[in-house]
Amino acid sequence: MSADTGPDIVDVPIGIDATGTRHETDSMGGIDVPADRYWGAQTQRSLVHFSIGDDRMPTAVYQAYGHVKKAAAIVNGRAGRLEEWRWRLIAGVADEVIHGQLDDSFPLFVWQTGSGTQSNMNVNEVISNRCIQLVGGELGSKTPIHPNDHVNMGQSSNDTFPTAMHIATVSTIVDRLLPAVGALRAAVDTNARRWRDVVKIGRTHLEDAVPLTVGQEWSGYSAQIHQAADRVESVLVGLHELAMGGTAVGTGLNAPAGFGDDVAEQIATQTGQPYISAENKFAAQGGLDAMVAASAGLRSLAVALMKIANDIRWLASGPRSGIGELSLPANEPGSSIMPGKVNPTQCEAMVMVCIQVLADDTGVAFAGTQGNFELNAMRPIIVNNVLHSATILADMCSKFTEYCVSGIELNRDVIAGYVDRSLMLVTALSPVIGYEKAAAIAHRAAADNSTLRTAALATGYIDADDFDRIVDPATMVGADAGPEQE
Amino acid sequence: MSADTGPDIVDVPIGIDATGTRHETDSMGGIDVPADRYWGAQTQRSLVHFSIGDDRMPTAVYQAYGHVKKAAAIVNGRAGRLEEWRWRLIAGVADEVIHGQLDDSFPLFVWQTGSGTQSNMNVNEVISNRCIQLVGGELGSKTPIHPNDHVNMGQSSNDTFPTAMHIATVSTIVDRLLPAVGALRAAVDTNARRWRDVVKIGRTHLEDAVPLTVGQEWSGYSAQIHQAADRVESVLVGLHELAMGGTAVGTGLNAPAGFGDDVAEQIATQTGQPYISAENKFAAQGGLDAMVAASAGLRSLAVALMKIANDIRWLASGPRSGIGELSLPANEPGSSIMPGKVNPTQCEAMVMVCIQVLADDTGVAFAGTQGNFELNAMRPIIVNNVLHSATILADMCSKFTEYCVSGIELNRDVIAGYVDRSLMLVTALSPVIGYEKAAAIAHRAAADNSTLRTAALATGYIDADDFDRIVDPATMVGADAGPEQE
Amino acid sequence: MSADTGPDIVDVPIGIDATGTRHETDSMGGIDVPADRYWGAQTQRSLVHFSIGDDRMPTAVYQAYGHVKKAAAIVNGRAGRLEEWRWRLIAGVADEVIHGQLDDSFPLFVWQTGSGTQSNMNVNEVISNRCIQLVGGELGSKTPIHPNDHVNMGQSSNDTFPTAMHIATVSTIVDRLLPAVGALRAAVDTNARRWRDVVKIGRTHLEDAVPLTVGQEWSGYSAQIHQAADRVESVLVGLHELAMGGTAVGTGLNAPAGFGDDVAEQIATQTGQPYISAENKFAAQGGLDAMVAASAGLRSLAVALMKIANDIRWLASGPRSGIGELSLPANEPGSSIMPGKVNPTQCEAMVMVCIQVLADDTGVAFAGTQGNFELNAMRPIIVNNVLHSATILADMCSKFTEYCVSGIELNRDVIAGYVDRSLMLVTALSPVIGYEKAAAIAHRAAADNSTLRTAALATGYIDADDFDRIVDPATMVGADAGPEQE
Amino acid sequence: MSADTGPDIVDVPIGIDATGTRHETDSMGGIDVPADRYWGAQTQRSLVHFSIGDDRMPTAVYQAYGHVKKAAAIVNGRAGRLEEWRWRLIAGVADEVIHGQLDDSFPLFVWQTGSGTQSNMNVNEVISNRCIQLVGGELGSKTPIHPNDHVNMGQSSNDTFPTAMHIATVSTIVDRLLPAVGALRAAVDTNARRWRDVVKIGRTHLEDAVPLTVGQEWSGYSAQIHQAADRVESVLVGLHELAMGGTAVGTGLNAPAGFGDDVAEQIATQTGQPYISAENKFAAQGGLDAMVAASAGLRSLAVALMKIANDIRWLASGPRSGIGELSLPANEPGSSIMPGKVNPTQCEAMVMVCIQVLADDTGVAFAGTQGNFELNAMRPIIVNNVLHSATILADMCSKFTEYCVSGIELNRDVIAGYVDRSLMLVTALSPVIGYEKAAAIAHRAAADNSTLRTAALATGYIDADDFDRIVDPATMVGADAGPEQE
Repeated sequence: MSADTGPDIVDVPIGIDATGTRHETDSMGGIDVPADRYWGAQTQRSLVHFSIGDDRMPTAVYQAYGHVKKAAAIVNGRAGRLEEWRWRLIAGVADEVIHGQLDDSFPLFVWQTGSGTQSNMNVNEVISNRCIQLVGGELGSKTPIHPNDHVNMGQSSNDTFPTAMHIATVSTIVDRLLPAVGALRAAVDTNARRWRDVVKIGRTHLEDAVPLTVGQEWSGYSAQIHQAADRVESVLVGLHELAMGGTAVGTGLNAPAGFGDDVAEQIATQTGQPYISAENKFAAQGGLDAMVAASAGLRSLAVALMKIANDIRWLASGPRSGIGELSLPANEPGSSIMPGKVNPTQCEAMVMVCIQVLADDTGVAFAGTQGNFELNAMRPIIVNNVLHSATILADMCSKFTEYCVSGIELNRDVIAGYVDRSLMLVTALSPVIGYEKAAAIAHRAAADNSTLRTAALATGYIDADDFDRIVDPATMVGADAGPEQE
Repeated sequence: MSADTGPDIVDVPIGIDATGTRHETDSMGGIDVPADRYWGAQTQRSLVHFSIGDDRMPTAVYQAYGHVKKAAAIVNGRAGRLEEWRWRLIAGVADEVIHGQLDDSFPLFVWQTGSGTQSNMNVNEVISNRCIQLVGGELGSKTPIHPNDHVNMGQSSNDTFPTAMHIATVSTIVDRLLPAVGALRAAVDTNARRWRDVVKIGRTHLEDAVPLTVGQEWSGYSAQIHQAADRVESVLVGLHELAMGGTAVGTGLNAPAGFGDDVAEQIATQTGQPYISAENKFAAQGGLDAMVAASAGLRSLAVALMKIANDIRWLASGPRSGIGELSLPANEPGSSIMPGKVNPTQCEAMVMVCIQVLADDTGVAFAGTQGNFELNAMRPIIVNNVLHSATILADMCSKFTEYCVSGIELNRDVIAGYVDRSLMLVTALSPVIGYEKAAAIAHRAAADNSTLRTAALATGYIDADDFDRIVDPATMVGADAGPEQE
Repeated sequence: MSADTGPDIVDVPIGIDATGTRHETDSMGGIDVPADRYWGAQTQRSLVHFSIGDDRMPTAVYQAYGHVKKAAAIVNGRAGRLEEWRWRLIAGVADEVIHGQLDDSFPLFVWQTGSGTQSNMNVNEVISNRCIQLVGGELGSKTPIHPNDHVNMGQSSNDTFPTAMHIATVSTIVDRLLPAVGALRAAVDTNARRWRDVVKIGRTHLEDAVPLTVGQEWSGYSAQIHQAADRVESVLVGLHELAMGGTAVGTGLNAPAGFGDDVAEQIATQTGQPYISAENKFAAQGGLDAMVAASAGLRSLAVALMKIANDIRWLASGPRSGIGELSLPANEPGSSIMPGKVNPTQCEAMVMVCIQVLADDTGVAFAGTQGNFELNAMRPIIVNNVLHSATILADMCSKFTEYCVSGIELNRDVIAGYVDRSLMLVTALSPVIGYEKAAAIAHRAAADNSTLRTAALATGYIDADDFDRIVDPATMVGADAGPEQE
Repeated sequence: MSADTGPDIVDVPIGIDATGTRHETDSMGGIDVPADRYWGAQTQRSLVHFSIGDDRMPTAVYQAYGHVKKAAAIVNGRAGRLEEWRWRLIAGVADEVIHGQLDDSFPLFVWQTGSGTQSNMNVNEVISNRCIQLVGGELGSKTPIHPNDHVNMGQSSNDTFPTAMHIATVSTIVDRLLPAVGALRAAVDTNARRWRDVVKIGRTHLEDAVPLTVGQEWSGYSAQIHQAADRVESVLVGLHELAMGGTAVGTGLNAPAGFGDDVAEQIATQTGQPYISAENKFAAQGGLDAMVAASAGLRSLAVALMKIANDIRWLASGPRSGIGELSLPANEPGSSIMPGKVNPTQCEAMVMVCIQVLADDTGVAFAGTQGNFELNAMRPIIVNNVLHSATILADMCSKFTEYCVSGIELNRDVIAGYVDRSLMLVTALSPVIGYEKAAAIAHRAAADNSTLRTAALATGYIDADDFDRIVDPATMVGADAGPEQE
C-alpha cells in the first residue's frame, strides 16, 4: 500500500467464508453479526428491533442506492475529497450493489426508522466491509473504508433515501411497467383492428343501447390505456428531481457546494435518465409529494384496467347463461367440484391487483400527509407501496396480455343475435319522427315481445321502406368504426 | 323577580323582531351580529373565519346538544348549583333545541375548530339569549343566563361535543337507519318467499354454475342485510358511553363529583337509550374510537348493499342483450336520446351511496388516528361523515325498497331457459362417474354446442335412465329451497 | 309568429306567477309539478324517487350545462338544423342558466341515475319551459321548444353530462381554487422573505437536528404549494377534452358529422378555455379517467397543505409547554371552559379539509373503476366529490391565508434559545474529527446535561478556537438562506 | 393391500428424492412439474399463469386448509363415504399440512383465481401425492388417493376456501395478535401505575390545558387498547361461522346432508375454537362480510395505536427543542450524518404499520363490495390483506412493547417546569370569579410574560390565599389519578 495508490485490490468473489458471528460496533457499542454476512452493527440492530411481518425493503431500493453511493464516491473523488483508490474501490463495490449481486446483504424490514437510515447504513456497512474484504482488511474494522466517513461522505439518509426512492421508482416504471403496458395496449389494438367491422349492441347502465362495432369498443380500451400510460409517464418529471445535496435538513451541511448538482448529473450519466438536483431541498425532504404523485399515476392505470378487465369478464360471461360475446382462453380447470368449468381468472386477478393498487395508494397519500418539519418519516411505507403497485401492475399486464387478451375470440353469432333483437335501434328514428313517437314504438315492441320493425310498422308512424333505410345497424355506428385493419 | 323564583317568564314565541345588527361580546372583545338572530360573538366569529364550502354542522348534533344542556341544567339544579328558575329556564329552551325549533340558529360550518367548541358556544349563546328573551332581558347581556357560567356549567366542549356526537349518531341509527334497513329486509324476504320454488342457474365467477332457487339467492341477500344490521346495532354499545364529566382534559375539573354519571343517567331518561358515563374519560376525549367503530358498522351495511344492488342490476340487464332474469320497475325514462330505455337507476344510486359511505369512512378512520394528547381535534369531520353516511344509507334503503325491490318481477321463461341449457348440471354426475369423466362430458357438450344429455350419452359414461334421475335441477338445489311461503 | 322569424319574444322576468300544481308529461305518462317551477315531468319523478339525504347536484354542473346547451343550439342553428329564432331563444335562456339566474330550478339530488340523465333532462325541461314562457306559450306543452327534440338536439346525457362535468371542474379550479392557492403561496413567500435571516434549529423525526433558517423552512412550504398547484394545473389538459359528439354510446348517432368538434370550439369561445373534442369518445364515456386524475391533482394539494398546517400548529404549540416558535393570530376564544385559551383553529380546519379531500378522492377512484361497457354510471358521485374537494380547498386556502398565515409572528427568543442549546450542531465537527468522535461528544453533552462546547472541549478532540469557528449556526445553514428580501 | 385395510403405509419422510420434471395431468391435459415437488398440474398451471409480483398466498391459509381436509376426511370416513384407510391416510397427511411441514409445497401467488380454487387444488394435489408416496404409489397417478374425488370429497373451493380464510384469520388473531396486544397493554398499565402521582400539564389542540397525571394519560392509552382489543375479539363470532357444506353455490350439492355441521364440529374439536356451520351459505359464499368486519376490527386497533405512538414520540421530542417529557430507549444510532442522534423509531414503525393496516383495510372493504351472484371472487386479496394486517400489528406490538414502552423514562424536571409555568391553571378560578375575569387574568399573564399568580393578584380579582388554595395542580387532577400502584 502506498499513500498514492492505496492498498492492493484482491480479487475475492462475493461471499464470506466464515461461520459463527463477528463483532461489529457503532456509536451505541458492539453487537454480534453473522460471520458470513457483510452487514454491520446498525443493520444487525435493526434486524433485532424490527423483525415485523415479512415485508422487506425492496431490492430495487438498494440497487438504486448503489447508484447513489457510486455517484457520490465519484464526485467526492473528482473534488479531491476521496483519494482515487478509495473512490474507485467504493464505486466498484457500488456496481456490485447496482447489479443485484449483493441483494442478500440487505435483509431489513420495511417497518423500520421512518427516514430509511437503517437501510442507508445497511448499504454503507456492506460496501465498507466488501471494500475491506477486497483489500484484505479486517471486516468490521471500518478501515480503510469507513461506512460513515467514506461511503456516506457528504450525504445523509435524509437526502440519499428519497434519492434512492426516486431512482428505484423511475427504473421500475420505465424498465418494467411501461413496456408491459405497451405490450398490453398493442394486443388490445390488434383486437380492435381484427374486429373493426363487427357490429354489436352497445350497453349503457348495463341495458341494451344503440350499436357500435367491437373495434370501436376496443379502441376505447386502447385509448384508456394510452392515456393512463401517459399519466404514469407524466410523474417521471417530478421523480427526476433528486434530494441529493440537502444532507440532514436540506441546507447541505457537510456537503460541498454543488454536490447535489454534480451527483445528480453523475446519476443521470449512470442511468440514462435525466435526473437533476431538486430546486428546493426543504420541500424534497420535508415532503414526498413526487412519490404521492407517482402513486396517483399508477392508480390511473389501475382505474382504467379494472374497468377493462371487468368488461371482458362480463362480455365473456356464460357460456350459456350470460352475455357470451367473447370466449376467453381456457387456461386451467375452473372448479374443484364443477367439471369442465372455465373461469375468467386473468380478469379476476387483474381486478384484485387494481384494488390493491388503490389500497396501496391510499396508504401512500395518507403517509404523504404525515411529514413533520424537515422530514417526512414515512418513507419506507411510501416506497414499498409504490414499488409494490408498479411491480404487480407490470407483471399482471404481462400475464393478462399473454394469457387473456391475445387469446380472446368473438362469438359472432351471439353478437349478431343481440343486434337483431335490439329495441334501442329505435333511436335512429328519433330525429325523423320525434322522441315521443319513437319511445312509443319501443314500449310497444317490449310489451308485445315483438321486433322493433313489427312494432314500428304497427304504429303507422313510419313505413317499411323508411324503417329499413333508417334502422340499419351498420350505418348507425358512425363513420369511424375503429382502427384500420393492418 | 325575587331571589327565590327568579324573573317572570314571558311567553315569547321563537324569533327576534329586529333588524340590523346587535353588539355582542366575548373574551376577545365585541362584534356585531345580525339583530334577528340568537347567536352571540363566538358564533359570529366562527362564521367570519370559517365560511368554507357549504358543509354545515348537521342539525342532529345541535338537537343532541339540547339533550346535553337540558340534562346538565337539571343535574346542576338538583345539586343546588343552579337556582331552580335558572335550570328550568335553561331546560325549557333546551327542549326547543331538542325539537329542532331553533335549528336555524345554528349556522356554523363543519370546517371549524377541531374540538367543536364553536358549535358548543353557539348552543350556549343561543340558549342564553333565548332565555334572556324569555325573561325580558337584554340580548347579548349574558344576564341573567350566562352562556359559559350557566349554560355550560360543569362542562367543556371537550366532553360535551363527543357526548353530542354519540347522541346524534345513536338517534340517527336507531330512529332513521335501522327502521329503513328493516323494511328493506322485509321486502327482500317477501321476494325470497315468493320465489322459493323457482329453480335458476347459479353463477360463480360470472360463469354458469349449478342450480339454486331464486328464493335461496334472495335468502342470501336477506342474511347479508340481517348480519350487517346486527353489525350496525353492535356499535351502539360503544356509543352509549358518554364523555360527559371529563370536562377539559378528562379529569373532570370544575365539574362536581358524580356529574358525569348523573348527566348520563339524565340523558338516558330523556332519550330512552341506555347511556352511561364512559369509564375512562382520557380515552373518550383523546380518542374517538367509538365513532370510528360506528363508521365501520355503517360500512358493513354498504358492503352488503352494494353487492346486492349490483346483483339486481346485472340480473335485470337487457332487456334483450343481457341476463334478463329480473324486470325492475320502470320509474322514469332512462335516456334523453334513446326512446323507451329504462335503467336500473335505484341500483345505481345505491351503488354510489355505498361508495360514498366507504369514502366517508376512510375519512373517519384517518381522522380517528389524528388525536394528540388529551384531545382528538378532528371531531367535526368525524361526526359529519358518520351522520352523512347513516342518513344517505337510511334514505337510500327506503327508496330502494319502495321503488325497486318491492316492484321486481321474475322473467320465468328466461330463467327456465338458462337451466335447460346449462352444462354445469354435469356436476351431479361427478360423485357417480368421477370428476374427470364428468369434465369430459362438459367439454364435449361445449365443443359440440349440444345439450349436456346428448353429450353424456354419447360418451357412454352413463345411460339415459341414470342421467335423467341424477341430473335433475329440482333436486340439485338441496333440501332447503329458501324461506317458507307465507 | 311567422315561419321565418318565429313567435314574438315577450320580456318576462324569471319566475312563474302561479300556485298549486301543473300537469307535465313524459314518455312514462303524466305527473303534477309545482306550478311555480320551470321543471317538468322527469325532474319531478327524480325528486320523488331520489330524495336521499341532502346532497344536491352542485349548481356549477348546471351552469356548465348552460354552456353546453347554448353551444349546441348555436351549432345546430348554424347547420340549419334549428331555425334562427329557435336557437336564439334557447341560447338566450342558456345564458340565464350560465349566470346562475335559474339555479333554484335545479333541485335534484346527487344520488340519482348514474348517467346524470335526470339532471340533463332537468336542464332541458327548464330551458324548454322558460323559452315557452318567453314566447307566451303554455308551460308543459313542449311547444314550440321541445326539451328532447330541440334543447337536447344532437345530444345524449351520455356525452353532455361528462362534458358538463369537465367544464364545471375546470371553472372551479381555474376561477376559484388556483387564485386562492396563489394568494396562499404569496403569503407564505412573504413570510419566507421576512424571516430569511432567522436561524432556527431543524427537526427530523421530531428530534433536534442541524440548523436552517426560518426562511428556508418556509421556502419549502412555498415550493410544496407551488408544485402542488402545478399538479392541479396539469389535470386541466385532460379536462379540456370533451365527450360532446359521442351521443349515446360514443358513435355520435343522431349527431351530424363534426358536431363534437364544433360544439367544443363554441364552448371554448364562450368560456375562454381551450376545449377540444375528445379523440376517442368510447374512452371518454365508458371511463371518467380525466376526472379521476383531476381528483388526484386536488389530492396533491391536500397532501402538501396538511403537512404545512401541521407544521404550523406544532411550531405554535404552547404557549409555554410546547415548541412555541410561532405565534398564531388569536381569532376567537379557544375554550368554553379554559379562559384565555387560544387554539390553532385554522390549522385544524385545514387538516380536516385535507382529510376530507383524501376521503372524497378514494370515492372518486373507486367510482372510476366501476364503469361498464359504454358508460361509467357513477358520474354524479364523481363530479360531486371533485367539486366538493375543489371548493373546500379553495375556501380553506383563502381563510387560512387571511386568518392564519398572514398574521403569524415569530417568537425570536424561543427560536434562539433552541439554537443555543442544541446538541446536533456537533454534526459540523464530523468532517473534521470523524463521525465516531463527534457522536461521543454529543452523547457526553447529553449525559452531562452540558453544552456541546463544554463537552467537546472536555473530550480533547477539538480545541476552543476550532470549535468556535466550525460550530457556527449561522454558517451551517448554507449559502442560500431562502428567498431574498423584497 | 387388501380391500379392507388398504395398502401398507410406508414411513417415508417428507421430501421427494428426484430431479428434473414429472408429468402431471388435469382435465386440461398434461404439464411437467418439478420432480421434487408434491404439487400437480393445476398448481403448475397457476404458477405459469400467475407469477405476479412476489405476494404469495399466506402459509396460514394452507395450514387452515389442513384442518378442512382432515375434518372432511374424518366426516366422510365416519359416514362410510371413504374407507377407513383412505380417510386415515388423508387425515395423517393433513396433519403434516396443519403443522406447516409441507409449507414449501404451496408456492402460489395471491393474484390468482378469485375463488382460491388454485390454492384448494394445490392442497388437494399435494395431499394426494404425499398419500401416494406414503403407500408407495406412482406420483401423479391420482391413485389410490385422487385430489378431487377423495381429498376434495363433498367440497368445493367455493365453500372450503372461505372456511380456510376464517380459520386462518381466527388463529392469527387468537394465537398471535391478541397475546401481543395483551402484553402491550400490560406494559402500558405498568407505566400508568408507575406514574400515577406525577402531575403534568394536559394539552388540547396541542396547546397547554389544565393538568392531569401522567398515570391518567397512560390509563387513557390502556383503555383505548383494551377497547380496541375487545373490538378485535368481537369479530371472532362472525368468523366462527363456516361456509363448509355449501359446496359450489351454497346449496350443498354433492355433499351429504349435515356435512357442513359435522365438518364444522370436527374443526372445532381440532382447533379448540367454537366453529359452527354458517346458517345461510348463500350469504357466506356470495359475500365475505365477516372478513370485512374482521378487517374493521383490526383497523380499530390501528387507529388507537397510531394515536398512542404519535403521543409518545411527540412527548419524547427534543431532547432540547421539543416537548421532552419522555425519554425513549436509545436502541440504535439515529442518523448517518448527525452523530449522537436518537430517534423514536419504534413509534415511526408503529405509525407506518397502522397506516398500512388502514390501507389494507380499504382494499378489503372495496373487494368486499365486488361479489357477484353466488361468489365473491375477491377472496385472495381479502385474506391476504387481513392476515397481513393482523401479522404486522402483532409483531409491531411485540417490538413496541419490548423496545419502546417498557423502557420509557420520565423527565420529571421538564414535566414539573411545564406545570409551574402554565396559564391554564386559571381554569380553576372560573367557577369562583367567572369565566370572563378568569380569561382576563390569563390574557394579562400572557401579555406580561408573567406567572399566572402575579397576573391574578395584579387584577385584584382574587387574593393570594384564595389563589394558592384554588390553583393547586395536585387537586385539579381529580380524585382518580389513575390505576393504583402495585
